Amino acid sequence: MTSAAATLEMVNSASGLADYLAAVEERLAVAIASHPGVVADVGADALAAGGKRLRPALTFLSAPAGLPASVAAGVAVELVHQATLVHDDLIDGAHVRRGHAAAWTSHGAAAARAAGDYLFARAFAELAATGDLAAVAVLAEASLALARGEAMQRRQRYDPDTAIDRYLERCALKTGKLFEAACVLGGGSGEYGLLLGIAFQIADDILDCTGDTIETGKVPGIDLRDGTPTLPLLLAAQLDPVVRTALAGGPLEGVLVRVAQSGALERSREVALDYARKAREALDGPGSSSGCRAELEALADAVVIRTG
Amino acid sequence: MTSAAATLEMVNSASGLADYLAAVEERLAVAIASHPGVVADVGADALAAGGKRLRPALTFLSAPAGLPASVAAGVAVELVHQATLVHDDLIDGAHVRRGHAAAWTSHGAAAARAAGDYLFARAFAELAATGDLAAVAVLAEASLALARGEAMQRRQRYDPDTAIDRYLERCALKTGKLFEAACVLGGGSGEYGLLLGIAFQIADDILDCTGDTIETGKVPGIDLRDGTPTLPLLLAAQLDPVVRTALAGGPLEGVLVRVAQSGALERSREVALDYARKAREALDGPGSSSGCRAELEALADAVVIRTG
Repeated sequence: MTSAAATLEMVNSASGLADYLAAVEERLAVAIASHPGVVADVGADALAAGGKRLRPALTFLSAPAGLPASVAAGVAVELVHQATLVHDDLIDGAHVRRGHAAAWTSHGAAAARAAGDYLFARAFAELAATGDLAAVAVLAEASLALARGEAMQRRQRYDPDTAIDRYLERCALKTGKLFEAACVLGGGSGEYGLLLGIAFQIADDILDCTGDTIETGKVPGIDLRDGTPTLPLLLAAQLDPVVRTALAGGPLEGVLVRVAQSGALERSREVALDYARKAREALDGPGSSSGCRAELEALADAVVIRTG
Repeated sequence: MTSAAATLEMVNSASGLADYLAAVEERLAVAIASHPGVVADVGADALAAGGKRLRPALTFLSAPAGLPASVAAGVAVELVHQATLVHDDLIDGAHVRRGHAAAWTSHGAAAARAAGDYLFARAFAELAATGDLAAVAVLAEASLALARGEAMQRRQRYDPDTAIDRYLERCALKTGKLFEAACVLGGGSGEYGLLLGIAFQIADDILDCTGDTIETGKVPGIDLRDGTPTLPLLLAAQLDPVVRTALAGGPLEGVLVRVAQSGALERSREVALDYARKAREALDGPGSSSGCRAELEALADAVVIRTG
């Protein structure tokens, strides 16, 4: 079991997270099944492929003490995340995700496109049904950020001169904003979610270099093969011209070993730990009266610990 | 000028449609420009490629007498439509749309995917900002229908035995539901919009067989080449085994001439006219107190007349 999963297990027994996630899971299944057909099939496949439902968990844990978290909000953030994964697969040609065939390989690109659009619209439909308009606006903003982050990643492709700040901005858009939305929709600190999301993405990018990618189950080294400039690759490229050439689209042979030798993984881990620390500190700020503060703090540690 | 465009021109001078559409256009430009980058570029390209803004026009014309139509609603339905076109291009590999390069050919598939997602989320953001939650729910429902219609189209591909009812259901999902939403968001009759949308789609499918595709600007005969069973192709296939074989993926040479010779175009046109007539009748029903009833009736005629 991973440390993040262990943390969630710990929380499960303490505070009703398991019940909440079970309710989210049930609603996800209903939302998908409500329109049978190939779209529902692709959507069901994507959901069944699993993942740890980290975003709904954040929604639950962010609820102020004594107040229940909205199941619809947890469902909505997970649906947006799944929509993104389905569309990612479509573009990336990532044939295998978490050991399952990607949606588009088993159902065709058009079905994956439609399923992604469907999951996306379903997310807004679920939130709109609650009557909470501010929540819809929060989810829309996070969805816009995801699309911008995706576009930014493509623009930065094969560019070893991508500024670290621009990489961090990409992490905020691609991952941080939906974590932020998950926390805000739960009633908690958006700043915690944003910082946690950046820490999480950096950790994921480190794992992509080391072969233990918990979040996506994808093959290690895919960022390097795609020419996606992540923090460890950018830091290594600053020191090692061979890594730099590889990141610009050159030969990849032996490059991940050089990345490890450059010390870039440890330096990236320090940056991730720093974001995790700032996330914990944000729990002292306004808008954070969670009844599960200890669990949120543990989660901030856990997302980086998995890289150690 | 096409007859549908002529009808809108007529309306323009009569009732302020031009001012409304200009306001929609301005808001569309602002919505796209608010986040610069490749996503905004693709979005701006898609919007600049034009089209007649039929859906916002429906929103305007559906407003009850004496009440203004919501510009945000017109913007939202157009953004959803444009998102669909961008994603369609991505999947179809339709290199040219309305004489412009499709979004993905000039910017890459990933940019088109991100731009489509962005336009989609932007639509919900625009509506959510108005505080009208029922409107958000209506748009979500229409968006779900679009995705289902798209999936259904792929499922029916190369199937000359597709039932006419299933084809009509596809038209309702792919086109009718967003027309319906445009009318409902304007405050008018959803039934009118749904029936008009089906008539419009049938007309478009006829034009694809005859080489005058006003709505999409795509090359004529693309449905046949894609194996998409449309009403004229299905009716012709019932009578002519050569058309049937072509629709199932066989040789296409000379097939559109045989479709024309089969009488399927006239029969399809009758079905479209019947839907247009039912759309006009729906204006007598509840929920229809438009101040532009004559224009809505003229529009119902115009969408089919273009096939004559």
